[in-house]
Amino acid sequence: MIPIDDSPIVRDDKSLILAMDHGLEHGPVDFEAVPEKLDPATVFETATHDAVSAMAVQKGIAEGYYPSYEDDVNLLLKVNGTSNLWMGEYDSAVNCSVDYAAEIGADAIGFTLYGGSNHEVEMAEEFRDVQEAAREHDLPVVMWSYPRGQGLKNDTKPSTISYATRLGLELGADIAKVKYPGSSEAMAHACKAAGDMKVVMSGGSKTSDYEFLSTVEAAVRAGAKGLAVGRNVWQRENPTQILDALEKVIYDEATADAALEATQ
Amino acid sequence: MIPIDDSPIVRDDKSLILAMDHGLEHGPVDFEAVPEKLDPATVFETATHDAVSAMAVQKGIAEGYYPSYEDDVNLLLKVNGTSNLWMGEYDSAVNCSVDYAAEIGADAIGFTLYGGSNHEVEMAEEFRDVQEAAREHDLPVVMWSYPRGQGLKNDTKPSTISYATRLGLELGADIAKVKYPGSSEAMAHACKAAGDMKVVMSGGSKTSDYEFLSTVEAAVRAGAKGLAVGRNVWQRENPTQILDALEKVIYDEATADAALEATQ
Amino acid sequence: MIPIDDSPIVRDDKSLILAMDHGLEHGPVDFEAVPEKLDPATVFETATHDAVSAMAVQKGIAEGYYPSYEDDVNLLLKVNGTSNLWMGEYDSAVNCSVDYAAEIGADAIGFTLYGGSNHEVEMAEEFRDVQEAAREHDLPVVMWSYPRGQGLKNDTKPSTISYATRLGLELGADIAKVKYPGSSEAMAHACKAAGDMKVVMSGGSKTSDYEFLSTVEAAVRAGAKGLAVGRNVWQRENPTQILDALEKVIYDEATADAALEATQ
Amino acid sequence: MIPIDDSPIVRDDKSLILAMDHGLEHGPVDFEAVPEKLDPATVFETATHDAVSAMAVQKGIAEGYYPSYEDDVNLLLKVNGTSNLWMGEYDSAVNCSVDYAAEIGADAIGFTLYGGSNHEVEMAEEFRDVQEAAREHDLPVVMWSYPRGQGLKNDTKPSTISYATRLGLELGADIAKVKYPGSSEAMAHACKAAGDMKVVMSGGSKTSDYEFLSTVEAAVRAGAKGLAVGRNVWQRENPTQILDALEKVIYDEATADAALEATQ
Amino acid sequence: MIPIDDSPIVRDDKSLILAMDHGLEHGPVDFEAVPEKLDPATVFETATHDAVSAMAVQKGIAEGYYPSYEDDVNLLLKVNGTSNLWMGEYDSAVNCSVDYAAEIGADAIGFTLYGGSNHEVEMAEEFRDVQEAAREHDLPVVMWSYPRGQGLKNDTKPSTISYATRLGLELGADIAKVKYPGSSEAMAHACKAAGDMKVVMSGGSKTSDYEFLSTVEAAVRAGAKGLAVGRNVWQRENPTQILDALEKVIYDEATADAALEATQ
Repeated sequence: MIPIDDSPIVRDDKSLILAMDHGLEHGPVDFEAVPEKLDPATVFETATHDAVSAMAVQKGIAEGYYPSYEDDVNLLLKVNGTSNLWMGEYDSAVNCSVDYAAEIGADAIGFTLYGGSNHEVEMAEEFRDVQEAAREHDLPVVMWSYPRGQGLKNDTKPSTISYATRLGLELGADIAKVKYPGSSEAMAHACKAAGDMKVVMSGGSKTSDYEFLSTVEAAVRAGAKGLAVGRNVWQRENPTQILDALEKVIYDEATADAALEATQ
Repeated sequence: MIPIDDSPIVRDDKSLILAMDHGLEHGPVDFEAVPEKLDPATVFETATHDAVSAMAVQKGIAEGYYPSYEDDVNLLLKVNGTSNLWMGEYDSAVNCSVDYAAEIGADAIGFTLYGGSNHEVEMAEEFRDVQEAAREHDLPVVMWSYPRGQGLKNDTKPSTISYATRLGLELGADIAKVKYPGSSEAMAHACKAAGDMKVVMSGGSKTSDYEFLSTVEAAVRAGAKGLAVGRNVWQRENPTQILDALEKVIYDEATADAALEATQ
Repeated sequence: MIPIDDSPIVRDDKSLILAMDHGLEHGPVDFEAVPEKLDPATVFETATHDAVSAMAVQKGIAEGYYPSYEDDVNLLLKVNGTSNLWMGEYDSAVNCSVDYAAEIGADAIGFTLYGGSNHEVEMAEEFRDVQEAAREHDLPVVMWSYPRGQGLKNDTKPSTISYATRLGLELGADIAKVKYPGSSEAMAHACKAAGDMKVVMSGGSKTSDYEFLSTVEAAVRAGAKGLAVGRNVWQRENPTQILDALEKVIYDEATADAALEATQ
Repeated sequence: MIPIDDSPIVRDDKSLILAMDHGLEHGPVDFEAVPEKLDPATVFETATHDAVSAMAVQKGIAEGYYPSYEDDVNLLLKVNGTSNLWMGEYDSAVNCSVDYAAEIGADAIGFTLYGGSNHEVEMAEEFRDVQEAAREHDLPVVMWSYPRGQGLKNDTKPSTISYATRLGLELGADIAKVKYPGSSEAMAHACKAAGDMKVVMSGGSKTSDYEFLSTVEAAVRAGAKGLAVGRNVWQRENPTQILDALEKVIYDEATADAALEATQ
Repeated sequence: MIPIDDSPIVRDDKSLILAMDHGLEHGPVDFEAVPEKLDPATVFETATHDAVSAMAVQKGIAEGYYPSYEDDVNLLLKVNGTSNLWMGEYDSAVNCSVDYAAEIGADAIGFTLYGGSNHEVEMAEEFRDVQEAAREHDLPVVMWSYPRGQGLKNDTKPSTISYATRLGLELGADIAKVKYPGSSEAMAHACKAAGDMKVVMSGGSKTSDYEFLSTVEAAVRAGAKGLAVGRNVWQRENPTQILDALEKVIYDEATADAALEATQ
């Protein structure tokens, strides 16, 4: 963890990361209900919203589309990932070097760590290389901290999420992205376990506006410094509207009710 | 994906890649009916046809034969491959470095990725190195995107092929070569899943002129930017004739019927 | 082993290392009774006590907190570690390079070796790289020498602990941190097995003041050159008081009784 | 494959390679009947015969003995190999770097590839490095192309040997050394499958003069460009006599009968 | 193999290597009967005897003690080794780089190769790197050539020991250290199998003066160029006396009887 409040991916101590690495991680199936979003340009358009402090994509998408959006969008290049065609123990290929990420304009680096996987040791060593290379380029590192694997069935229980944020702190991440552990108290503990490192909530699969915003509100009140979200934004008919509301909940610390009222 | 329309392997937004890596992948058995084609020079001769925008071979063939054809043929060096003597989980040895490929005159790089294989993570990391080295040499990268392995029996079903093209886009290929998913609609979806990245259809084993050209026509109408073909050309008695027809179907977007009529 | 008596982590031939890598190795659960210690700053404050010759933390904690304490605390950067979410054979990820450790101000390097683990060979080779890099930066190396794994159930029996200290000597550590082998005679043998290399006792889980200090006293009389302790200090209500007592037992070679009397 | 007709290991388009790597691959047992040949100098003496265009040995033999023979013998340094003490799946350790081989005077590099072994992928990648390093030193590469392993019981059947020569061509060897596939027709097909790359027959275990020379004659008539032989030369009482005969069969394309008559 | 007769570790064509890597390989248990020898300085003192042409230790011992003995002892740095806590297939960690060995004053490099182990291929490749680095520093390489592993129960039978010496020759060692194969004839064959490379007998566990010296005498008469010995020297009450005797047997080729008489 280094000071990142001056980084473009942080706005007023918070971040709202719009993620679209689903084409790699889940495949085109995530776009079934919104087939036009198969075109990454549509999601980059959404990312030009002021509420979005960074857009997280894989190397190929960044190469192909970021040149048209580099003035309006901050790039968080996710440097590892794996398709769900793969049946092996949880692991993630480092598919982009940090040097190349920097070359194509990345403002920050993203990395998945599966603590508890039989590949944890190897992934932690890959994280070392990525994190230290990012330091040389003065790029913040966001860890997708997702404990998974042998012996970890329920990966959102409070102790697991607190361990997840602590792993981010201990290993040198600047932001840890974790799943919501089910309660505001558990989220508060997870944020405490992270010390001064920022924690952002993972958006998860699509839910109703109210349910989604309420969870974000609870996370922020518990100490989370924002949100990393994909499907809950770009799977909606009106991504702008939900981003308007998220902007109020995250940066203005408005309630979900107030944010909904003001934006609908 | 980077802009490749000015690359020699692209002609009017399309590509026709003549592949002859079968000696490595399948062995001499593929040449049984056409033993004279064991001599790579015969296939290089075929590749001088104007319809062919690139010829795909392995390192040894390129070293030995390309010096005689470098004025008339564009070289797509396939940098990985494996014999079918091998009984292990799907994998592919990186048998040529990109630096060496560039040194012997490659105009583009080819790479097989077996998404879903237990070697997917390793192959994706090898692809990273190959792709980034190709960028340094300004060489386009064609991904043979073939999901295979544990749990993937039918590797041409529509969702698999759409995932295959998407993998190409996400990981940074410039062209993805995939199998025909059985219908024009499925091919159209696979092309959409690829965003702005070009998709070419894989030629497969030898079929009748009409059947073959009709499939190519359907693929092109669905958005495919051409064809990568081996046996369906050089296993024929008259490769020139089928290339004449393919030229019409691919570059002029003629129907299979019209192309056949004009060339026979 | 090289001469380290002039190193900042040594005081009068002894060391008292305050360790707080538990957030990585054990998770937040170690802080349950002392939740305020989830904030690493609280433990760094404790480490400013004169008795503490070095504080041992992982990379992320060092990056985030050491800049505020570099004038008052000597940094022992522990460069490997693994979460206990992991179910595999004992192993430890090298999560920080020595170069980076030096860059962020480390005064010494810490490394865990699990002799007897099925990863022993690999870990010994990683230790080689770490130790030789540390030599280039003139940094002492402390080995957490913990025989573990297949066939090693009771890892504190005398012969195991003597083997553990000898491994430190043979492989080139400057200090070996080992568990107390249960008796003063066994500890004396373990120190003899280490030749001129320093041995420090591992603090272990929290015990009563008297029990803890008596064991430290016994270890020091047996030839141990100090203590590496975490929970037995920062899990106490009054860490300063126990450090006052440890200072007497370790540096002045006072008895546990005398030290307790003088400090309570 | 690159042009190698000017290489010292080629004489009039042919090669006769005298191999003595048996001490590594088979152990001293191969020298039981000819114990004086345990001294490599005796075999180097034999290699000074004009018929021998190169002598193939491992690094240690080259280091120790080649300095005395560098004016009279061309050195083919075999850079991988494995003892038969080893019980694992077919594999071969790369026990000499190409740079070092060049430094000690190698005129060519030898490499074993076990196509079909579960180590095929790894071996093909090692071959890549060796072949490309050899190119930098302008050294020809001879592949011992021996399909072996899981599912390959009879490794001399015609289709296997043709695949073996083709692997040499595809992967970039300059000469492939293969076993005789049992008939002149099969050998002719194997040579065709190699395109313009040279194929040499492997000598195998000791047979009668006539049987041996007849097989060589058949191979040469089928298109083989010579022979790589060990035991069938140095296990004989009079290696010079058989080399005299081989010289006629290989370079003069004499019959076995004529060669025998002229030399006995 | 390169000429090493001018190396400090050779005296009149012979070597007597005093080894003390037992603390790593066997643990402190080897010092139970001679606990004062846990202090490496005591064995370095012994190594100052004129009969000793080199002392073999691991990195840590060399770092800590060799600076006091560099004028009187030649250092053979053993660069791999493994504890016997380890239960896996025979393997040995490369725990010291050759560059570092040279930096701390090594006169020669030692390396264990377990031919026949499932790690043979990997160890042979590590040996390649070590041997070639040693060449750059002009340091002789001594191979502890110990066939072991799956299928090798009796590792001292004559054919195994002859294979062991041959492996040293083929792979590029300068001296091979092997176990005594049980008879003078077998030792003579093992020395023949090594060509011009020197073979030294391994000392083994402690035996009576006469038995030990007789075996050394037999080995030297059979062609061995000396001895590498540990326990049979430093486990004795009077190491000097046995070294006096060994000096006569090895360098003067005296009989065991004559040597005993002259020194007792």
